[in-house]
Amino acid sequence: MEVKGETTRWNFKENENLLAASGVSIRGVLNKLMQSLDPSDTRPVIPLGHGDPSAFPCFRTTPVAEDAISDSVRSAKFNGYSSTVGILPARKAVAEYLSQDLPNKLSPDDVYLTIGCTQAIEVILNVLARPNANILLPRPGFPYYEARAVFCNLEMRHFDLLPESEWEVDLNAVESLADENTVAIVIINPGNPCGNVYTYHHLKGVAEMARKLGILVIADEVYDHLTFGSKPFVPMGIFGSIAPVITLGSISKRWIVPGWRLGWLVTNDPNGILKKHGVIDSITGFLNISSDPATFIQGAIPQIIQNTKDDFFSKIANMLRETADICYDRIKDIPCITCPSKPQGSMFVMVKLHLNLLADIEDDLDFCLKLAKEESLIILPGIAVGLKNWLRITFVCEPSSLEDGLKRLNAFYQRHAKKQ
Amino acid sequence: MEVKGETTRWNFKENENLLAASGVSIRGVLNKLMQSLDPSDTRPVIPLGHGDPSAFPCFRTTPVAEDAISDSVRSAKFNGYSSTVGILPARKAVAEYLSQDLPNKLSPDDVYLTIGCTQAIEVILNVLARPNANILLPRPGFPYYEARAVFCNLEMRHFDLLPESEWEVDLNAVESLADENTVAIVIINPGNPCGNVYTYHHLKGVAEMARKLGILVIADEVYDHLTFGSKPFVPMGIFGSIAPVITLGSISKRWIVPGWRLGWLVTNDPNGILKKHGVIDSITGFLNISSDPATFIQGAIPQIIQNTKDDFFSKIANMLRETADICYDRIKDIPCITCPSKPQGSMFVMVKLHLNLLADIEDDLDFCLKLAKEESLIILPGIAVGLKNWLRITFVCEPSSLEDGLKRLNAFYQRHAKKQ
Repeated sequence: MEVKGETTRWNFKENENLLAASGVSIRGVLNKLMQSLDPSDTRPVIPLGHGDPSAFPCFRTTPVAEDAISDSVRSAKFNGYSSTVGILPARKAVAEYLSQDLPNKLSPDDVYLTIGCTQAIEVILNVLARPNANILLPRPGFPYYEARAVFCNLEMRHFDLLPESEWEVDLNAVESLADENTVAIVIINPGNPCGNVYTYHHLKGVAEMARKLGILVIADEVYDHLTFGSKPFVPMGIFGSIAPVITLGSISKRWIVPGWRLGWLVTNDPNGILKKHGVIDSITGFLNISSDPATFIQGAIPQIIQNTKDDFFSKIANMLRETADICYDRIKDIPCITCPSKPQGSMFVMVKLHLNLLADIEDDLDFCLKLAKEESLIILPGIAVGLKNWLRITFVCEPSSLEDGLKRLNAFYQRHAKKQ
Repeated sequence: MEVKGETTRWNFKENENLLAASGVSIRGVLNKLMQSLDPSDTRPVIPLGHGDPSAFPCFRTTPVAEDAISDSVRSAKFNGYSSTVGILPARKAVAEYLSQDLPNKLSPDDVYLTIGCTQAIEVILNVLARPNANILLPRPGFPYYEARAVFCNLEMRHFDLLPESEWEVDLNAVESLADENTVAIVIINPGNPCGNVYTYHHLKGVAEMARKLGILVIADEVYDHLTFGSKPFVPMGIFGSIAPVITLGSISKRWIVPGWRLGWLVTNDPNGILKKHGVIDSITGFLNISSDPATFIQGAIPQIIQNTKDDFFSKIANMLRETADICYDRIKDIPCITCPSKPQGSMFVMVKLHLNLLADIEDDLDFCLKLAKEESLIILPGIAVGLKNWLRITFVCEPSSLEDGLKRLNAFYQRHAKKQ
């Protein structure tokens, strides 16, 4: 057989559908901002773009969690493949942990372990993506939903979160968007990107609307219990008897270990509606052909959950309160951005960008690219979370870095302010 | 708003496409076999169905690897999110590790870290799945390829591995199957499920055929270096200048830690053909919207690779040789199964099932279900790997358990043998 030269015609090429889907990722936007940094700037880069404070000493995880991992791997009991749904002791621990806040006790069979909350999102969207189906997503939101929905051909319909009503769901809009092909609504609480925390009353209203529309509620609670204002965290699962609720969560945020990739998908469905409608079989089917979280990390979960003391959680909540306060106060001094409501949960705040006060900034992306280049400060443009000409600011970092970052933001504004 | 009773019409239902895709998983079949076990049988279950010997003391991983994990998690440097392609020190270590056997040195940029080898398969199939594209898969093979190809609508065309030629690829069949929409061929070496090891000459022939057809080679080398016969392991990447080669691998098998979920996708493409044709951008795009292997496991990789001594690898190779010998010898005593060639690599052997010698067995699945029920012995039916009325036997376990398992298999045969 003759080996041909450079004239070989290769049959493979790029995947356009895939590139379209991944074009909307936070990771993709952050990668662009990082490329825009000026390497000659000797100041440290201040990362207020993503929800990962694990690099800051004041947000280091508890030694309890590190010990649990070390014990688990040294036991040699968890080197093998996981089961499809996750190993039983870990599912049991998660069921008991979440049941503390619920009227109905969860069983381990309600719990499916996933590779962080992102895989839980991937699972449920793929399960729901049948021809013509559509899903209701919040705007602003978390763009991983959009990316995965595009990729699995699940039609998206967006409802607004209302900045003037503490980012509550516009329930009238939800009702008018839905039709007989609508399968689910996504609620992120505590909110990413808005830092909102929903009341019992509002969440109950969402559940009742879901029942009226015949859809399930996907409750993204990856920031569960990370609240530091006057409103307590209320798990959506409380309303599982009104409409089936699928709760997504992980240890990533509360334990400050996003890189450990341990999350869950949990069914809150005391009436067994999901099973009856084949959703449970589809979840198991998808997990049968998916990767699992590392087995020894699953093996560490009972110890992590049982041994972590409240003082760790209070310390983190206090740090969040302190940094949220700094962020909210300093923002008031920067004329080109305004914050409609003080964050009460998660790690983010959304601020509106007033382009009319800026001389040479085209839009939010342009703002963030120039900010990265000139100030070595990373902030996420609102377009990445569905809200053009807003910004998402992460306030989780060392207080001194946060102060420094917001000073740089003000300096950037002063330099680009429109002259009167 | 009125909350309706049981008359609510719910819009969601099972996903048939997904159930079809996951219907072919090894995991699904093994779950069925496990359900068939008789709980009143007091003997231990002998698991010869899957490639995971980690539960057996003689196949325990090296303390070097456990130490590396413990050090990594306690450093608190790897609690955060990974980068899209994996952290640099880990990619560098994998590049150096694989380069030892290659003529061209790999760069860290050739390496993409994945959640075990299964996610690497998911990545490359999704990247290649554009409308009308087809892929050439071996029969028998590893059904995760089939499941993922069905799920991403990538057309499959199967070529035979030839049992009478030590399971070599039928290259004439490959040539006649391919057309201008064929994008890739999958080669699993050392072989799962057949235990074969391909020669330099045969692999070069595959690469030359790939070039002739204008397709890339997906070299599944998850069992790399797990050889114990006369033939050495030859990495397909050696032939990357003939046709682009994408090598898939992991630490799962060589280090006996399949539950750690750390694998890789590596491009062997000194002529830059994959980049030119957009495949690299699509890989990165897919990884931008995918989960990552746990960051602290990535962080442990340099230490795991650098500190593992050859004596660990030789010990494992010796165990594999011993158990493969036991398996091959005992099979000769069981009339209803025959083995066309002695395994030289991986952890499996394929044996042909002679139904004409059995009185009341319908097919290979029926054989395995009854075997599980009557003998508490798990063996994978060939149908699960694409070859009806064959069996895949895993020989990695404690030698005494393997002996016991093969005795049970013989007892099962004697009980079901057709009377003359």
